[in-house]
Amino acid sequence: MNKEDIIYEGKAKYLLKTDKDDEVIVYFKDDATAFNGVKKDNIESKGILNNKITTIIFNYLIKNGIKTHYLKTLNDREQLCKKVTIVPLEFICRNIAAGSMAKRLGVEEGKELTRPIREISYKCDELNDPLLNDDHAIALGIVKEDDLMYCYDQMLKINDLLIKLFDRINLILVDFKIEFGYTKDNELVLCDEFSPDNCRLWDKDTKQKLDKDVFRRDLGNIIDTYSEILNRLEKLGDL
Amino acid sequence: MNKEDIIYEGKAKYLLKTDKDDEVIVYFKDDATAFNGVKKDNIESKGILNNKITTIIFNYLIKNGIKTHYLKTLNDREQLCKKVTIVPLEFICRNIAAGSMAKRLGVEEGKELTRPIREISYKCDELNDPLLNDDHAIALGIVKEDDLMYCYDQMLKINDLLIKLFDRINLILVDFKIEFGYTKDNELVLCDEFSPDNCRLWDKDTKQKLDKDVFRRDLGNIIDTYSEILNRLEKLGDL
Repeated sequence: MNKEDIIYEGKAKYLLKTDKDDEVIVYFKDDATAFNGVKKDNIESKGILNNKITTIIFNYLIKNGIKTHYLKTLNDREQLCKKVTIVPLEFICRNIAAGSMAKRLGVEEGKELTRPIREISYKCDELNDPLLNDDHAIALGIVKEDDLMYCYDQMLKINDLLIKLFDRINLILVDFKIEFGYTKDNELVLCDEFSPDNCRLWDKDTKQKLDKDVFRRDLGNIIDTYSEILNRLEKLGDL
Repeated sequence: MNKEDIIYEGKAKYLLKTDKDDEVIVYFKDDATAFNGVKKDNIESKGILNNKITTIIFNYLIKNGIKTHYLKTLNDREQLCKKVTIVPLEFICRNIAAGSMAKRLGVEEGKELTRPIREISYKCDELNDPLLNDDHAIALGIVKEDDLMYCYDQMLKINDLLIKLFDRINLILVDFKIEFGYTKDNELVLCDEFSPDNCRLWDKDTKQKLDKDVFRRDLGNIIDTYSEILNRLEKLGDL
């Protein structure tokens, strides 16, 4: 990685320019942050694990008809991806009450929801990524109504696919956060990453947390945890 | 009012029992609270003004096809109403960005919205009335989907009716908060009150605030302000 190629530095990734103006390289850093950057650490090899896990998940989603920004994995830390203009929303899907939602709404962590809850929050660090409803997002011009509905639809399809995938490796998909962006051809695609950094995974038998809550709540070793997820996924072979 | 008749004490009203088990008396107190009860005061005659204003507004809405809990006004401070089981949601409708929404989402107060924003918040003082989206309310069993959609529909009709009414007295309806409840016959009706305590009204020419923001932000005399609203409404005669 050349520092002069950096287009953008996020909390856990760099975006690097390539020779083509419609492609970028996503570089997975080892930085870990939580609570909107209040808690920070650098955990050696986390970026490598998240790159590998995201590669497996994105390939599985692509095979199952989900359009993404992902093109190919270049090395331990880098993916070649389509360049996108991001929709400034975090799309959250919840199957079980946990984390910020459980606390904010006074619901016991672990409560199964009668149907998946879709949430959006406005990507804005200064405002602490506030929760929005659909009317906010549309009336404030953050996203077009049709595009919002399309992203929700894609998110529910991704949820169905991943619930099944994780079930095969004895994991419960509690919730996840994803992002969408527009390619040069104005196609709306899944982007960012899918790793234990942006989802909650609980072991089906022990209910052990195998995701970033280990970092947020000081529950153990991040590398052991993320390696466990990668190992279980790799044991499945070709998806 | 007999103290022994109190069924429930809210921040600005009492509910009193009557001889009939499907009717209650709503008694308008002089208490003023803001910021979820952090700021408090007692403002002599405020209850009388809010009773009078609510009487005019509810009668106007009923004439225009909105179903409400209101039966009749008994005296300066009391209304006879149908007894309801409240939906534990505050329904908020915004035509112009102001107050908590403007602050939370970094939008300038006074920005006109391209369409009305509907919001719901969970009536729960301990949780500080958190904002919900539709999925939260439905998946957590707070309200049935059909009923939620019906309340939204009623709220938008109320918004259209009241925008027109207030326009006739040179006021802009910036936003308002209403509540719904089920009658004994399981009919979903508008309840609570409609007064400057639960809406924002700005003078069309001067943009002067003529609502509870006068109390929240120490902008002047509450009684003068609420009297100004009542006077303008009374000048219209029969609605």
